[in-house]
Amino acid sequence: MDILALKQKCDAAGQAHLLQFWDQLNETEQSALAAEIQHTNLSEAHDFFLSVQESLSEADEKIDEHLEPLESAVCGSVARTSSEQLSKYWDLGLSAVSKSEVAVLLLAGGQGTRLGVSYPKGMYNVGLPSSKTLYQIQAERILKLQRLAEAEYGKQCSIPWYIMTSEHTKEATENFFSSHNHFGLSRENVVLFEQSLLPCFDFDGKIILETKSKMALAPAGNGGLYKALRDRGVLEDLIKRGIKSIHVYCVDNILVKMADPVFIGFCLSKGAECGAKVVEKTMPKEAVGVVCKVSNKYQVVEYSEITLRTAEKRAHDGRLLFNAGNICNHFFTSDFLQKVCLKENESLLKHHVAKKKIPFVDMNGQQQKPAAPNGIKMEKFVFDVFQFAHNFGVWEVLREDEFAPLKNAEGQPKDTPTMCRHALMSLHHRHILAASGRFTHSDGTPYTDIQSNNNIAQNGSNGQQSHEEVETIVCEISPLVSYNGEGLEKVVKGKSLTPPIVIDFDPATCSPIISQHESN
Amino acid sequence: MDILALKQKCDAAGQAHLLQFWDQLNETEQSALAAEIQHTNLSEAHDFFLSVQESLSEADEKIDEHLEPLESAVCGSVARTSSEQLSKYWDLGLSAVSKSEVAVLLLAGGQGTRLGVSYPKGMYNVGLPSSKTLYQIQAERILKLQRLAEAEYGKQCSIPWYIMTSEHTKEATENFFSSHNHFGLSRENVVLFEQSLLPCFDFDGKIILETKSKMALAPAGNGGLYKALRDRGVLEDLIKRGIKSIHVYCVDNILVKMADPVFIGFCLSKGAECGAKVVEKTMPKEAVGVVCKVSNKYQVVEYSEITLRTAEKRAHDGRLLFNAGNICNHFFTSDFLQKVCLKENESLLKHHVAKKKIPFVDMNGQQQKPAAPNGIKMEKFVFDVFQFAHNFGVWEVLREDEFAPLKNAEGQPKDTPTMCRHALMSLHHRHILAASGRFTHSDGTPYTDIQSNNNIAQNGSNGQQSHEEVETIVCEISPLVSYNGEGLEKVVKGKSLTPPIVIDFDPATCSPIISQHESN
Repeated sequence: MDILALKQKCDAAGQAHLLQFWDQLNETEQSALAAEIQHTNLSEAHDFFLSVQESLSEADEKIDEHLEPLESAVCGSVARTSSEQLSKYWDLGLSAVSKSEVAVLLLAGGQGTRLGVSYPKGMYNVGLPSSKTLYQIQAERILKLQRLAEAEYGKQCSIPWYIMTSEHTKEATENFFSSHNHFGLSRENVVLFEQSLLPCFDFDGKIILETKSKMALAPAGNGGLYKALRDRGVLEDLIKRGIKSIHVYCVDNILVKMADPVFIGFCLSKGAECGAKVVEKTMPKEAVGVVCKVSNKYQVVEYSEITLRTAEKRAHDGRLLFNAGNICNHFFTSDFLQKVCLKENESLLKHHVAKKKIPFVDMNGQQQKPAAPNGIKMEKFVFDVFQFAHNFGVWEVLREDEFAPLKNAEGQPKDTPTMCRHALMSLHHRHILAASGRFTHSDGTPYTDIQSNNNIAQNGSNGQQSHEEVETIVCEISPLVSYNGEGLEKVVKGKSLTPPIVIDFDPATCSPIISQHESN
Repeated sequence: MDILALKQKCDAAGQAHLLQFWDQLNETEQSALAAEIQHTNLSEAHDFFLSVQESLSEADEKIDEHLEPLESAVCGSVARTSSEQLSKYWDLGLSAVSKSEVAVLLLAGGQGTRLGVSYPKGMYNVGLPSSKTLYQIQAERILKLQRLAEAEYGKQCSIPWYIMTSEHTKEATENFFSSHNHFGLSRENVVLFEQSLLPCFDFDGKIILETKSKMALAPAGNGGLYKALRDRGVLEDLIKRGIKSIHVYCVDNILVKMADPVFIGFCLSKGAECGAKVVEKTMPKEAVGVVCKVSNKYQVVEYSEITLRTAEKRAHDGRLLFNAGNICNHFFTSDFLQKVCLKENESLLKHHVAKKKIPFVDMNGQQQKPAAPNGIKMEKFVFDVFQFAHNFGVWEVLREDEFAPLKNAEGQPKDTPTMCRHALMSLHHRHILAASGRFTHSDGTPYTDIQSNNNIAQNGSNGQQSHEEVETIVCEISPLVSYNGEGLEKVVKGKSLTPPIVIDFDPATCSPIISQHESN
């Protein structure tokens, strides 16, 4: 091991302290640390630090006056589009799928810290009757969409699934897919790649040592995507396969429509090189980023970047003026991806900085867990490439149909496993009703569609209806049976179903079966 | 005591069992039971039972096909109205207030069962810095509005406050107002009156005995208002005082705008005899009643009365077709109230029926608490008089400004004391910002307007903004200082305020004071 070269590298980047415990390390530890230092571009990382250092002492700068609403020409909304037009978008998207021109790309580098699990979020089972994990649900949606396109266009196709992991999630994700036989997808169509990590710095620009032989490293944000696409050969793979449209999304939304043909068709018909799926922000203080224009460039503006006064502004139609709530569902053409992945563009994406409590070793080599933030993580955001888009598309969808993220552990006020499960079952409930299925109690009496939760609403409301949660009927439809409610009439029409029920796909007969209690 | 007459009365109504323990009662108990029976119109109550009996065995009937959306001519919305027009409404409403033509009427007959308190909800302190109760907040809003009208029009005026209690809340409410000197209101302008109770029946039409000497009685719903207005002389009192407009509301909404001049002005300018303030229902499954038309009559339709398919319907503008969410804030002209209180009309209001677990005495005189519903309560709803309205008005307001009901105890998912407190402080926060006040930490650094809650959001979002709750800045404005944000510039403009702060009214100087931490 060339300890001298190592020392020089550290010195040159002002990080000599990384080797302070060198003599106390055994050989394994030494080579681990040496490898880590060799693989990290210390001076580049330190340059990043210098570029964000200023913003550390500043209060959040407000950019209100630069905000502009989206031009209506780039916007569309599922609720304000005729069903004929929606069908056209669907057809356009499905046609692209049938030509194997569409890929999905999953951002799965984060850990489920807030959820309270040590494994990747995609492996989480939210407690559906089927016990399916998020990964399995997503895989089956891809499979089903391939089948729909194949049935419609009479030829084989595939939707490659690119999954960006990080050091924290790579191995577990790989093993999970292998051990589940990629949930029926072709192995070559599930492409895992790893995003890189960045060192964490203290406020003086020194890289934090987590242990005597290990730097504190963190994923470089989901915007690390572009560097990874370039450096890991993924971009080449996309091009080689002839992919033209990419749907990028985050792992935690249980309602995510994989490669949604309507969204893709909308973006294609707009000629958009880049697009965002959004939900309407309806409350000024909702902590969600909004898609808008800033100094004539498309951007996601976080709630902390604007004043409440701007957040409260309303348009003539009574909606919030800045209401395109970002749900991390993006559309990119591969041309656009190629452009933004160019080093000269990718390097323009600024680092966002977050103060964090980062475990560190003290002078005596003892690990300490700080009570207050002692350092920073630097992250790029996936949506920061919107600034490069000339032709943009914003597609507004309904929250109850398409957005239910898994973020927090049970007992938290929002975004819990239970809420995700209910959101999915509630959607499936509506799909079944729309296909003329009925739900009945075991004694044959019908369920009320919107069922008050007895635990809460029983105590009488004296005519003042309570804005309560309503009871969720336990029903689940396998994505292999229906991607988005289609094809269910032949399964449920006129039937009385007694929950809990699962409409599953029987591989033996290649047809749906309704399992558990069924009457009639 | 004429036991024979008593017996005849019970027999005639098929309720002979009410006297089954007569011989076991002591004299006090006998006279209590006798009085109760004498005061109750047993045959009328039994007729009510017969009229609802049928609906007990039916499943909820759906009325989807009779639903019609509201005509746009009767609708208005604070978010879609120019500020000039809003000012006109305000002026019109305030002018009516200044002529002492406006009264408020509070529905406060219910118990705080779900809230888990044994006293009337209005006496609840949600934990504001000032520790004010709901009653005090409401009283001070009335006082302030009177002062605003007096200042504007240069003459004394009053807004009488009618409070409908029930046997459950009457005494506590009376004592509370007396002991707090009616919160500065004139005693003669706070008029308590009692709504009547109705017996609870078992499923066979027998009145349930709660103890050997007491019938099970329950308030007849907030729609008991009309009978009480007539029978208790309240209607006469309204007329005698020259009241022309009445704002009716429920006690539990901490944001309620008492006698809201904008709402009243809107209704007056529409020539409405009856009006409803609503918030937009945005999620199809939200358990809220909606104002609409049914077979050409105005009505509040509960979520259980329609199918999900109808609840999901959207208009061309993307909003739900039936989106006028009832928040129990109504406008009535006194002419309209006189009309609906006529016996021939009031008796047309149907009883709604709810199956309940009602404590009862068994054959042996032992009290039992049933595990399953054993009887029914019959209630009328206050909004059922909408059917009599020819000229109607629907005024849509913003949820974050005007609706935060106190329904449940802490720990429940919705409508808790904490949520009410936050809703009020959040409104006051916005009022202070709008008046150009600033919030700073004690070290002088500014607060971000939309502040993420550190407990939740600190864990980094990796560029996926979380739709989290945001932190609420602790600030409170006395209603005596500002009814709805007006007049605050002279108090806070350009000032740096460090929460927690209270902007209070100093009665000694008749001017606002900012108490607790203030810098600059």
